[in-house]
Amino acid sequence: MSRPLRITVVGGSRCDDATATLAEQIGREVARRGGVLVCGGLGGVMEAASKGASAAGGLVVGILPGVDAREANPHVAVPIPTGMGEARNVVNVRAGDAVIALRGSHGTLSEIAFALGFGIPVMAVRSWRHLDGVEQAETAEEAVERALERADAGGGSSGT
Amino acid sequence: MSRPLRITVVGGSRCDDATATLAEQIGREVARRGGVLVCGGLGGVMEAASKGASAAGGLVVGILPGVDAREANPHVAVPIPTGMGEARNVVNVRAGDAVIALRGSHGTLSEIAFALGFGIPVMAVRSWRHLDGVEQAETAEEAVERALERADAGGGSSGT
Amino acid sequence: MSRPLRITVVGGSRCDDATATLAEQIGREVARRGGVLVCGGLGGVMEAASKGASAAGGLVVGILPGVDAREANPHVAVPIPTGMGEARNVVNVRAGDAVIALRGSHGTLSEIAFALGFGIPVMAVRSWRHLDGVEQAETAEEAVERALERADAGGGSSGT
Amino acid sequence: MSRPLRITVVGGSRCDDATATLAEQIGREVARRGGVLVCGGLGGVMEAASKGASAAGGLVVGILPGVDAREANPHVAVPIPTGMGEARNVVNVRAGDAVIALRGSHGTLSEIAFALGFGIPVMAVRSWRHLDGVEQAETAEEAVERALERADAGGGSSGT
Repeated sequence: MSRPLRITVVGGSRCDDATATLAEQIGREVARRGGVLVCGGLGGVMEAASKGASAAGGLVVGILPGVDAREANPHVAVPIPTGMGEARNVVNVRAGDAVIALRGSHGTLSEIAFALGFGIPVMAVRSWRHLDGVEQAETAEEAVERALERADAGGGSSGT
Repeated sequence: MSRPLRITVVGGSRCDDATATLAEQIGREVARRGGVLVCGGLGGVMEAASKGASAAGGLVVGILPGVDAREANPHVAVPIPTGMGEARNVVNVRAGDAVIALRGSHGTLSEIAFALGFGIPVMAVRSWRHLDGVEQAETAEEAVERALERADAGGGSSGT
Repeated sequence: MSRPLRITVVGGSRCDDATATLAEQIGREVARRGGVLVCGGLGGVMEAASKGASAAGGLVVGILPGVDAREANPHVAVPIPTGMGEARNVVNVRAGDAVIALRGSHGTLSEIAFALGFGIPVMAVRSWRHLDGVEQAETAEEAVERALERADAGGGSSGT
Repeated sequence: MSRPLRITVVGGSRCDDATATLAEQIGREVARRGGVLVCGGLGGVMEAASKGASAAGGLVVGILPGVDAREANPHVAVPIPTGMGEARNVVNVRAGDAVIALRGSHGTLSEIAFALGFGIPVMAVRSWRHLDGVEQAETAEEAVERALERADAGGGSSGT
């Protein structure tokens, strides 16, 4: 079988309108291109990306820090309550064949750092800029297209 | 929105034919009734349940102990490589609105123990028998029907 | 160098007086024989064992489920707040060269199950009785003596 | 009781001689001032810091990513094998009342990010420089002195 590629979107649990719009576009693009959207399942960037993917008919998986699935935003179809707090950031990152990072705070930075350490491709759109190994994209389309290319090239978890 | 209920199936990573048949029937029933199948993503009971659910058109999520999504059995649509070893058992259990336990070893026992501790309903079919709070079921149909009832009653993560 | 052996004591976060007395004796014995006491850091069996070890001049490490080191009982010298909830049970077990189990609930059962699965020796004193592979001891002295023997034989983490 | 303060030292698992010398000085200072040294338990910065603390008579705790306590460097008195891979970075950080960061790679960056996110004071000595909220120190003495001050002011886990 061939599995759909999984794209993890990371960013702040609160965000400004421009970032939310961008996240929603990214979620929609992931879904339109047949990817599964993975995120931390909460608000802000996570919710906007979930909304975009869900509206486009895509599957949304939310890796939650807490123990209650009801904390997931309403666009998450499959909540995974880990009860592990911020250690879930590691799972969130590993769950993706590639990571797209938007504006966020220290949690987002930890996820970018883990992705780089794990050799998982990271595309950033208006996020932490100064990290070697993070590719910059200007638009949602560019970010998703390149994330899927990089994910696919990595072999990732897509079977044959 | 109303989320599909998630049923976590736990059991040995190797199993005899009768257990595999039972696990496959359980996976199929979960899918037929609109549930998402969650499991540890590997072989044995996990693979048989995944196969049943996948064949019936259901979604299969595999919460893996290792770091490589390719370790998932071929019926897992969404592998979640945690890299956390057996600590992923906690996530596996929390990810379900109810747990169905088949024959297994100490990992399975740890998952039953966590479910009981978390207040997550546990149905056992030919599994560890002597634990208070674990309900016994005789058939795949009975196990899934009651798991879904109990999951739904708990309110679980199904939205409104 | 030769490291001291680490003995993990598991049991309920509340307990009756007889169990507390037993736990305190076990903690004292671990310290008297030069071992490090590891536990979950909270109350009940954990606190009593910590008290016994601390009073005898031993080192007490508490692997906490929460994020606040101040949740540790007052006899813990080195609190390790994991923020991982019950997934810390895995760490608690792995941190010991052997495990001594007293009366407890599902968390304790999960820890016994993990120890058995990991091949870590488990001594039980008036705890869950029906598990193959768990050795039974009648007194604190017997439990600690045998736990240290078994830990040492395993090679565990003691250097040379 | 009053617990000793715990200082977590983070940095690369391999390092140049100058960094090793600095790490060893930091470990020694932590021990001299009565602190417990926490680290990831492996080589490089971790080993040098462990060596310094151990040589000065201090207690060294190593929070290991793997399952085998024997992977700890020889100066670790209390190895804690987590089996959680890089998710142990979260535990490593939370275990400290303050963090001192030396030169390192993405794992180190993830630890700095977590510390900032958790509100745990971070002192950097020749480490990742461009992060708001990280205090810079020039020498081992300065780093340890300020880390202990900041840890103490935070109330941290030191009891009364």
